[in-house]
Amino acid sequence: MIETKLNKINTLQDVSERNINPEVRIESDSLGSMEIPSNAYYGIQAKRAQENFPLPVAKVHPELIRSMGKVKYACVCANLQTNTMPEQIGSAIKKACIELINGEFDEQIIVESIQGGAGTSINMNVNEVLANRALEILRVDKGRYDIVSPNTHVNMAQSTNDVVPTAFKVSVLSMEENLINSLEKLFLALKDKEQELDDVLVMGRTHLQDALPIRLGQEFGAYSRVLRRDIDRIKSAMKSLSTVNLGATAVGTGLNADPVYIQAAIEELCSITGLNLEVAEHLVDGTQNTDGYIHLSSALKNCALSLSKMANDLRMKASGPSCGLMEINLPPVQPGSSIMPGKVNPVMAEMMNQICFQVQGNDHTVSLASGAGQFELNVMGPVLFKNLFESIDIITHGAEVFAVRCIEGITANKEACKEKVENSVALATALNPHLGYEATSGIAKEVLKSKRSVREVTLEKGLLSESDLDEIMQPKEMTEPGIAGKHLIGIGVRQA
Amino acid sequence: MIETKLNKINTLQDVSERNINPEVRIESDSLGSMEIPSNAYYGIQAKRAQENFPLPVAKVHPELIRSMGKVKYACVCANLQTNTMPEQIGSAIKKACIELINGEFDEQIIVESIQGGAGTSINMNVNEVLANRALEILRVDKGRYDIVSPNTHVNMAQSTNDVVPTAFKVSVLSMEENLINSLEKLFLALKDKEQELDDVLVMGRTHLQDALPIRLGQEFGAYSRVLRRDIDRIKSAMKSLSTVNLGATAVGTGLNADPVYIQAAIEELCSITGLNLEVAEHLVDGTQNTDGYIHLSSALKNCALSLSKMANDLRMKASGPSCGLMEINLPPVQPGSSIMPGKVNPVMAEMMNQICFQVQGNDHTVSLASGAGQFELNVMGPVLFKNLFESIDIITHGAEVFAVRCIEGITANKEACKEKVENSVALATALNPHLGYEATSGIAKEVLKSKRSVREVTLEKGLLSESDLDEIMQPKEMTEPGIAGKHLIGIGVRQA
Amino acid sequence: MIETKLNKINTLQDVSERNINPEVRIESDSLGSMEIPSNAYYGIQAKRAQENFPLPVAKVHPELIRSMGKVKYACVCANLQTNTMPEQIGSAIKKACIELINGEFDEQIIVESIQGGAGTSINMNVNEVLANRALEILRVDKGRYDIVSPNTHVNMAQSTNDVVPTAFKVSVLSMEENLINSLEKLFLALKDKEQELDDVLVMGRTHLQDALPIRLGQEFGAYSRVLRRDIDRIKSAMKSLSTVNLGATAVGTGLNADPVYIQAAIEELCSITGLNLEVAEHLVDGTQNTDGYIHLSSALKNCALSLSKMANDLRMKASGPSCGLMEINLPPVQPGSSIMPGKVNPVMAEMMNQICFQVQGNDHTVSLASGAGQFELNVMGPVLFKNLFESIDIITHGAEVFAVRCIEGITANKEACKEKVENSVALATALNPHLGYEATSGIAKEVLKSKRSVREVTLEKGLLSESDLDEIMQPKEMTEPGIAGKHLIGIGVRQA
Amino acid sequence: MIETKLNKINTLQDVSERNINPEVRIESDSLGSMEIPSNAYYGIQAKRAQENFPLPVAKVHPELIRSMGKVKYACVCANLQTNTMPEQIGSAIKKACIELINGEFDEQIIVESIQGGAGTSINMNVNEVLANRALEILRVDKGRYDIVSPNTHVNMAQSTNDVVPTAFKVSVLSMEENLINSLEKLFLALKDKEQELDDVLVMGRTHLQDALPIRLGQEFGAYSRVLRRDIDRIKSAMKSLSTVNLGATAVGTGLNADPVYIQAAIEELCSITGLNLEVAEHLVDGTQNTDGYIHLSSALKNCALSLSKMANDLRMKASGPSCGLMEINLPPVQPGSSIMPGKVNPVMAEMMNQICFQVQGNDHTVSLASGAGQFELNVMGPVLFKNLFESIDIITHGAEVFAVRCIEGITANKEACKEKVENSVALATALNPHLGYEATSGIAKEVLKSKRSVREVTLEKGLLSESDLDEIMQPKEMTEPGIAGKHLIGIGVRQA
Repeated sequence: MIETKLNKINTLQDVSERNINPEVRIESDSLGSMEIPSNAYYGIQAKRAQENFPLPVAKVHPELIRSMGKVKYACVCANLQTNTMPEQIGSAIKKACIELINGEFDEQIIVESIQGGAGTSINMNVNEVLANRALEILRVDKGRYDIVSPNTHVNMAQSTNDVVPTAFKVSVLSMEENLINSLEKLFLALKDKEQELDDVLVMGRTHLQDALPIRLGQEFGAYSRVLRRDIDRIKSAMKSLSTVNLGATAVGTGLNADPVYIQAAIEELCSITGLNLEVAEHLVDGTQNTDGYIHLSSALKNCALSLSKMANDLRMKASGPSCGLMEINLPPVQPGSSIMPGKVNPVMAEMMNQICFQVQGNDHTVSLASGAGQFELNVMGPVLFKNLFESIDIITHGAEVFAVRCIEGITANKEACKEKVENSVALATALNPHLGYEATSGIAKEVLKSKRSVREVTLEKGLLSESDLDEIMQPKEMTEPGIAGKHLIGIGVRQA
Repeated sequence: MIETKLNKINTLQDVSERNINPEVRIESDSLGSMEIPSNAYYGIQAKRAQENFPLPVAKVHPELIRSMGKVKYACVCANLQTNTMPEQIGSAIKKACIELINGEFDEQIIVESIQGGAGTSINMNVNEVLANRALEILRVDKGRYDIVSPNTHVNMAQSTNDVVPTAFKVSVLSMEENLINSLEKLFLALKDKEQELDDVLVMGRTHLQDALPIRLGQEFGAYSRVLRRDIDRIKSAMKSLSTVNLGATAVGTGLNADPVYIQAAIEELCSITGLNLEVAEHLVDGTQNTDGYIHLSSALKNCALSLSKMANDLRMKASGPSCGLMEINLPPVQPGSSIMPGKVNPVMAEMMNQICFQVQGNDHTVSLASGAGQFELNVMGPVLFKNLFESIDIITHGAEVFAVRCIEGITANKEACKEKVENSVALATALNPHLGYEATSGIAKEVLKSKRSVREVTLEKGLLSESDLDEIMQPKEMTEPGIAGKHLIGIGVRQA
Repeated sequence: MIETKLNKINTLQDVSERNINPEVRIESDSLGSMEIPSNAYYGIQAKRAQENFPLPVAKVHPELIRSMGKVKYACVCANLQTNTMPEQIGSAIKKACIELINGEFDEQIIVESIQGGAGTSINMNVNEVLANRALEILRVDKGRYDIVSPNTHVNMAQSTNDVVPTAFKVSVLSMEENLINSLEKLFLALKDKEQELDDVLVMGRTHLQDALPIRLGQEFGAYSRVLRRDIDRIKSAMKSLSTVNLGATAVGTGLNADPVYIQAAIEELCSITGLNLEVAEHLVDGTQNTDGYIHLSSALKNCALSLSKMANDLRMKASGPSCGLMEINLPPVQPGSSIMPGKVNPVMAEMMNQICFQVQGNDHTVSLASGAGQFELNVMGPVLFKNLFESIDIITHGAEVFAVRCIEGITANKEACKEKVENSVALATALNPHLGYEATSGIAKEVLKSKRSVREVTLEKGLLSESDLDEIMQPKEMTEPGIAGKHLIGIGVRQA
Repeated sequence: MIETKLNKINTLQDVSERNINPEVRIESDSLGSMEIPSNAYYGIQAKRAQENFPLPVAKVHPELIRSMGKVKYACVCANLQTNTMPEQIGSAIKKACIELINGEFDEQIIVESIQGGAGTSINMNVNEVLANRALEILRVDKGRYDIVSPNTHVNMAQSTNDVVPTAFKVSVLSMEENLINSLEKLFLALKDKEQELDDVLVMGRTHLQDALPIRLGQEFGAYSRVLRRDIDRIKSAMKSLSTVNLGATAVGTGLNADPVYIQAAIEELCSITGLNLEVAEHLVDGTQNTDGYIHLSSALKNCALSLSKMANDLRMKASGPSCGLMEINLPPVQPGSSIMPGKVNPVMAEMMNQICFQVQGNDHTVSLASGAGQFELNVMGPVLFKNLFESIDIITHGAEVFAVRCIEGITANKEACKEKVENSVALATALNPHLGYEATSGIAKEVLKSKRSVREVTLEKGLLSESDLDEIMQPKEMTEPGIAGKHLIGIGVRQA
């Protein structure tokens, strides 16, 4: 009978050393023994990992801890359904999982975000916490892994290589709502400005040179539209992460994972997370490839580039107060300088730029980590997770505060903008269809040289009448498709 | 009458200098005059650009020249429809466009791929070539821009800022078919190998350490599936490029572009290109944002990372012949070494890796260029185009030759692989559900130490019977989800 | 008299609102008033910054806080020397600085690492803490900035734009010792292995294919030498950071900073930091350019690439235990798998790879931030500091633990390696000088086909005698420059 | 006798197929036979490479072809000295090398820049061209490799792995002079502007907001100084490339390369190149590590970031003509727009920005390629070379034209700049030392609100007298370190 043999083994493995310090317990693994604080829920493998990877970086992200709890919960339920998990033990582990999900053991997850490959240490830290809490629930001493084992029981039918990526995807999908909400808030702020500033005429610029009149509202309309596409791209990338490899176990072949278990586990996981997850059609593919992470990271980078462009434009448009473009005013949110009184800086936009640089750098790290996958597994998961988490976090928080503390409060220097546009040589372009490019160039050159207006020079040259010019030179009309003073045109060029 | 005025201007602008060298003609613009070879179709602006940007980089991509021809063709047709273009001139320009599309003036496009912002020089070079060829068709001397003007006529209702990006998008979409065909060819080669090698048992590896048995076909199945997603991502990104800003003119407001013209131009362009293009709903957005380029570049990068991973795996699997993994043989395509006789190197895979590094670096340049957009226009288009073109080109050519000269010829060292797997300690994992992780660890440790087999050690320890082991230790069955020797399991653990 | 006027102003600015909540005090600035906890040392500007930039990223690095304290200390000393600082106030600020340096106010620095541009918020947070602590020392209520002002007094003759970059450079230079020590430890570990493994013959590989015999010690010699150069490059980059712009004030012109003050401040700063700092020859240059940061970041990236290559090689060489290269053994530091018993993974090397990806991504962010400098200042400092700090920190901690827990414990599978080499076709290359490349190719081809040894085939073909072969085919001798069996050579080729 | 054996082999290897097409010859290698055009100097291996890597990228850089010729020349000389090379053959190969160096066979180098790993195909293409040319010189038919072998003779004592990297380094060092000259020209142009524009007062900006007065010359001084450091960094990186691994042969152990040969070869190479090269102290290190390439690429990137910042500043400063900063005028070099008459764009600066994006992307590719080194060799050389060559080329050409066509022609709008500065609130900072930050803030606020001058408001508030203000408010004096109106200060603050 297997039963007997299993009991025998446990006896053989009984910790032989006697622990004489009541404040610690002794735990052992294949490499030897270590002292663990008696009241600790983590165990020897977490402790080893803490010593192996003592890096001053962020701890494991709290969302990942929560998601690990959910995945473990789903797995234990599935193992109970397939009758491979003893009822009493399974029940205790389930209770422990719920507590972990509720954040009761965050301090017991002692490993850093950057660690050995694949996240074995995250998984084992969680397994140990759950095993020890289950033991406690069963009124057994912590560390009695012969009763509840972090591996045999908590990790039953699982591998780091399926549960950690699955938990990571659950984490990211759980963060999606906040991320999208924050970007939608920014989108709405931009849409509101599009409407509010629709009648503010400003100089449109190409190559940083005055080009043609445009309405400030049109510019905010452009900002809002690219952000809309960014949101869509992020959502689309998120969707691709809803395919998980739960049940793949170590290399994607699913050894030790019964198909019934896999089905049950994914159903439980959907239920507890409220997410619409599905198991990869080809688990080997689902285990070794990280293209979904790149997909998301790329979408975040694309969004960062849009936001950075926006921030750049706003900072330039708000430049001044005496020697800049002075088109708009960003709401002051803090004094700008420790030395220059009265100075107010575009700090919210600067924050946004910096967030965007960080997201781009993180994307680089994610790409490098993703590119380092080998054979059945990409072991570089931990650094990849760290960077995607940071990118999501800072866009989420940054976009919201950027909406509220910057975009919403923007005002325009309407009159000054209008005056500048009306006196600009840029208006000459509207004469093209009537006079041809070469003639208009001559006018423009004269305008710049003499510092007179396009109207004056054109009249003086006798090229168009006052009434023609009245019809053509309407800056506001120039901001929509069409040929200003349209009826003239046929005559003009057709005869040429 | 406008007509009179226009004539007057032309007279005023007549080139006053008399050209006495029959081999050159004199052309003038607002900055002065230059000598242009008499037989040249390009004009003064192309010449200036050539002198301004004398960089030893690739010339303008031939596909872009062709697409510029198509866009110009569509625009002249539209201008004829709206009666703004004189019939005779329009007809001559159309003819010139068709010749340009047919590649007859490739040498006349003398500007480099990296040039001043936005691609004004590409546009003007094309405008000049078309104007001069139209003049020739009309039996007028080249350079007589008072008759057919590169700006007034060829560029009518257009700006660099709408025609160049539109032409670029047309180019990329025109290259899509070859790109996708090439990737599909590679996909099929991988699918074929998936089938062909489905029964080859090899050691699956995680962390580069022996993990669990896997079938070589499963690995190729994973390669093919990620490539399938890459193809889909590329197609999806391509689709986002089918929205163009034709008619936006300089800043997206569409000044000088009649809505009727815009509609006609896009219809003509769809017709001549065979593409399903549409005009951006918001032309200001369509003119200033380059998120579509990033979208495509990201999809190409993601694909590159997949291909690079594949190439890395294959190179490692083919390592040897005496001191490597020796699982597969890549077809030899050239002698490997100038000094080491008999050496054959995985050069096709190395080429693929290098292509992938180039695509990633290009993506970086594209991101930087895209991030440098300001206000109404991203002037960094030229470098952005250059890099996207190169990425598409090298994946297109690289993927095909990689399929034909590498993947298709791969063979496996079937027997050697199988033998290694069967003697591996990795098989011990299958004992987990029966004996528990801790007991199985003991077996594994003993196996490694004693260099005996898992079966031997397990039997010796008396933990399982021969018949149990027969049922459990079947490497091939281990490559599919499930618990080997399943009926045993319930007993084993439920009683624990 | 100025004196009178200054007093008058202070009266005018007296906070008029009466604070009725004893647990808070009211602070005001040009934007309005806020409640600050009574016991807080930070003030209104830190509070605003905290609300403006609520990003879940690392707080300001503790080393930067310490360095800000040192810079402020140096400045107050200098202001006392130039008699611009009232003695009593200056003395209190000095005391406060020392406490800040000693870490007593770390919790009072409440702003995040990513914040508004330039680090104004870091500077003002520090200024406020020092002002309030100085007030406390002077037995005046916190918040009485009319007595000790964060700007007028603590920030006297300073700007964020000179003190923050200076403090950052002081921080980095203060971290140099630990960084270098850690890399030196790794260097020594590699040197030790170079000696220890000098007689272990392994197969040298190019293109991942067997090439020529090499000694394991030679490989560690190569690792140690590139690391030596990396250390030198880092030191050289560090040196370039010892030029600071203290005294530049806002834009590098030094307005409000007396040359005597500048001289005194830098001397004090050298004295308190023990560093050999100097003031930039051209303060405008010193204020706007961030090339020194790129220089350092590049050196760190170069080092990361070396370490990553090392980690990759070691992971591959340690691959196995049954189906890998199995040349070396990395010391086991934790069980490798949650599911596969007995598996040990190269986690230390994987950690190092991930550190290296992070450093490269950080370098990307640093480059983007550096590239975003405009006019007199690069405002993107905060994100730049964050990333450089992280890179330094993780290399420092990572290199040491990599040395101790990985490199130092490496052992070689000496006999197995030797046997493989001796049976390898790679040895054929040594026949080249004697038989020519073409003939040797024939031998190599036959060896591979027949699975016999080079010696056997050569003898069989009658191309060389046994004694010739004895002289030529000595794998160990092949690992040093020279022609094996040299005296034979002349005859061979000279006669050809 | 070896001699006999060698002859025998040659006989055995005689091409048995009879070539019946007079326009082609048949060449064979270990993989089979191919038809080669009779008049081609390249051979079967080049042909195979051309078919294997049909990528539409740049051909091998001409500088690399020349350098390969030099390296081959040095090696044949050395082999002659050690008496391993038959005199007559060596003499013919030397002649062929000189012709190759003179560019006579550029078209015969048919392989692309991106190819199989390490550059074996470059090396073999060169070897074949030299062998066939040597045969021709010896009046033997091309293709008679039994007489002069590309491997045995031309490649004698060499491997791709030492000669190609050595040739690449020689190439880069040979390009150094032009690169440095071009950057020095730009440096001088900036220095000239520093002097010329020293008395132009403009508004210094931080955070894009008006900060303090600065002189335009100071800004150009800052540009010139960072470029000076960039030049120094590039030179320093170049120096690190002067250590080559010639004689390392395949894996760095130097098998088949006699120490006497190595010494002779490096001496000849120094002599023919005029460079100060030295052989790596540890050839295994010198063969596998590519840190020198990263060092150079980083220095180029750092320079690119400096140049890009400069270009950005200039484009913004030249923005206008009506609605921009309008501080300076960039020399017009081409009409700016195809639609907007009179528009002139900062195209030279835009070109520079794009060059800088390309250099950064190339650096990324170089880093990825460098990070992919494995064991004894980094096989990713070809893509690495391609990118470094492009970076050097475009900086070399770009910097010169940027100097001549942009920097040298810059003029300032002196009067307009001065007027703006004098009316700016930014001048208030000079009151700080006299009135304190808080009081000055009040003045600044009032100035901005009332649109009056700092002087007016200060007088009105009765805070300083007219004569005090005369002394303090001197914008030009504000551009140097010191406290404006210095004698007042002691009174002001000391009494506070």
